[in-house]
Amino acid sequence: MKPITCPGFKAAGIHAGLKKNNEKDLGLVYSDVPATVAGVFTTNRVKAAPVQLDMERAKTGQCRAIVVNSKNANCCTGERGMQDALSMGRSVSTALDIDENDVMVASTGVIGDPLPIEKIEAAAPDLVQSLSSQGFMDCAQAMMTTDTVPKLVHRQGELAGKPFNVVGLAKGSGMIAPNMATMLCFLCTDVQAEPGTLKKALFKSVETSLNRIVIDGDTSTNDTTLILANGQSGVSLENNAGMEIFQRMLDDVLMTLARELVRDAEGGTKEVTIDVKGAATPEDARKIAETIANSPLVKTAIFGEDANWGRIAAAAGRAGVPLEPGQLDIFFNDVQMTAKGLNCGVKAESAATTVLKQPEYTITVDLNIGNGEASVLTCDFSIDYVKINADYRS
Amino acid sequence: MKPITCPGFKAAGIHAGLKKNNEKDLGLVYSDVPATVAGVFTTNRVKAAPVQLDMERAKTGQCRAIVVNSKNANCCTGERGMQDALSMGRSVSTALDIDENDVMVASTGVIGDPLPIEKIEAAAPDLVQSLSSQGFMDCAQAMMTTDTVPKLVHRQGELAGKPFNVVGLAKGSGMIAPNMATMLCFLCTDVQAEPGTLKKALFKSVETSLNRIVIDGDTSTNDTTLILANGQSGVSLENNAGMEIFQRMLDDVLMTLARELVRDAEGGTKEVTIDVKGAATPEDARKIAETIANSPLVKTAIFGEDANWGRIAAAAGRAGVPLEPGQLDIFFNDVQMTAKGLNCGVKAESAATTVLKQPEYTITVDLNIGNGEASVLTCDFSIDYVKINADYRS
Repeated sequence: MKPITCPGFKAAGIHAGLKKNNEKDLGLVYSDVPATVAGVFTTNRVKAAPVQLDMERAKTGQCRAIVVNSKNANCCTGERGMQDALSMGRSVSTALDIDENDVMVASTGVIGDPLPIEKIEAAAPDLVQSLSSQGFMDCAQAMMTTDTVPKLVHRQGELAGKPFNVVGLAKGSGMIAPNMATMLCFLCTDVQAEPGTLKKALFKSVETSLNRIVIDGDTSTNDTTLILANGQSGVSLENNAGMEIFQRMLDDVLMTLARELVRDAEGGTKEVTIDVKGAATPEDARKIAETIANSPLVKTAIFGEDANWGRIAAAAGRAGVPLEPGQLDIFFNDVQMTAKGLNCGVKAESAATTVLKQPEYTITVDLNIGNGEASVLTCDFSIDYVKINADYRS
Repeated sequence: MKPITCPGFKAAGIHAGLKKNNEKDLGLVYSDVPATVAGVFTTNRVKAAPVQLDMERAKTGQCRAIVVNSKNANCCTGERGMQDALSMGRSVSTALDIDENDVMVASTGVIGDPLPIEKIEAAAPDLVQSLSSQGFMDCAQAMMTTDTVPKLVHRQGELAGKPFNVVGLAKGSGMIAPNMATMLCFLCTDVQAEPGTLKKALFKSVETSLNRIVIDGDTSTNDTTLILANGQSGVSLENNAGMEIFQRMLDDVLMTLARELVRDAEGGTKEVTIDVKGAATPEDARKIAETIANSPLVKTAIFGEDANWGRIAAAAGRAGVPLEPGQLDIFFNDVQMTAKGLNCGVKAESAATTVLKQPEYTITVDLNIGNGEASVLTCDFSIDYVKINADYRS
């Protein structure tokens, strides 16, 4: 397979001593030239030090590098945490000989322990030395916590006869819920775009991708999505024709990463799309879809391959939005389980069993009272989810 | 142990053929004389047929009997479901020779399958024959679904020199969340009270007991709490002096049942009180306590006996209420884990490990920004929770 590259960008991932077994734990993304930047950050009121730092630095709209470590979230670490985040950024800005304010900092891992900053500082020169145009996979690996596979996506498009690229790296697993930036996700593109244009495009894509996945309903303190645009393709987004094509590609990259995050969710064995339609409003549809996607009883039934549509109806009923129980149609793929709230019987049950054995399927809930629609992507609650999270820190 | 009785009440529980292995699945509570009644019902918009029926019948304020079956929830069963609920009530009112409108009906179990009403009708005469003043335990057993033990509580008090009684029966396990009547709970008392007085007392006690327990955040379609007062003790609540004593006893009975429900939660191995204080308002404190109590990451860490206070801070942070991360104090019993948001270190961690091994403990979160307080009771998410709920219907 050809290594993934994006003109004008380099990346790296090395072992700095935070993880055991020589595994990569420190990553870097770097743009040869000043890039514009936009970010989406966690809505959690407890924000890790690097998130606070990045929110401030993103305001300039300019960035050259992102440095990221795994194993430690640098969260709930007080004033020292902020000093460590600053030092972490400075350690690479010095080695790169760039302004420290042009470096974004990200951390993921355990909350509450001080960052082993001396290890990061000691490793920074090696990290910068390792930068390579083919280094994205190394960086994606360095970001992993309980992820079982690195997530790296590349798409190439054409605008005004010129090729352009979008590369996305992400790490996920637990603590994923909508209405926030969701996990760590870094995007590199060689288009030219003003910060405002980039921000608009990023928000739009995140809203229909990362903000529509539900793993366990917990919202992390460190979630950060950043996009860097360095203009090296010669393609500019600052005219309307190109915007739509770029947006579609960004949607595609983020949706692909979102699917990979769900597929690799902690202990997850199923990838299930919850489609809600016929609600009074799209907001109502979304509330119902998210309530179903978050229900432990629905999620354990999905794990158990049990066509327990009653739990889906019960979750819909407690979403706090208008609903007529006697109008509910529920489907597993195209197998209808209830018609106007009533059980479709043994034949449907048996057909559903075949659907539920598949690793991917869609649950459709039609409320039949309006035109509101929404879709979210979720996974099951497995025995392994409990095992992984019962002793995450050990 | 002396059997539990309440003057003027009889109860029964028999096997009607819904459960396997000859287990009790049909229960009855009966008052020799007309009793006043009050109820609290599920807030889920999908309400089982018997819940709809009871909500209507409770309006009269009068009741003689409650008939209950397990194994089938008679929910999402349409017009037939309502006919079945009516038939179920009628089968016992006929055998008891009382008005069918004086019978409350309750069902618990799988959603969506039609009630095997012919089995219930066939068993009704036997059920009535089995009534006995010592039959409460049989009825409590007949209500059980995945409960491992029947829940039955008796308290006796004295008012104006006369003894009076409160007996409570409950079934719980999964699908338990606050802001609703929570599971099935029937209360019998021999005090005399007008329906309005009874309702006020019931709402007040439920609010501080059943509405403060969180098992999996799912809200059932069938949750019902009913209290019957038959006046046989000669003690009347219709004067202010007695009310306070009765309220305290009702609080005690419901809180004891609530604790038993949490202790016997599906797959639960820990009983944990989440005390939140120092919030801006009591409502804020409650939101934070419930968010912590519902967090799968917190609940799996409790199961794993892992002092992962970072997850508690993260859950508090996403509750959507004001909070200063730099002010957070978190305790496991009296072991302080964070002071003003900062880790108390290795010693605290080691002391916490001892606390976390206990079957019961308290997590205290002090926000240090106001005087709002709230407390909820929760349990862990265990491997067995997933196992039980993955194949509940089989």
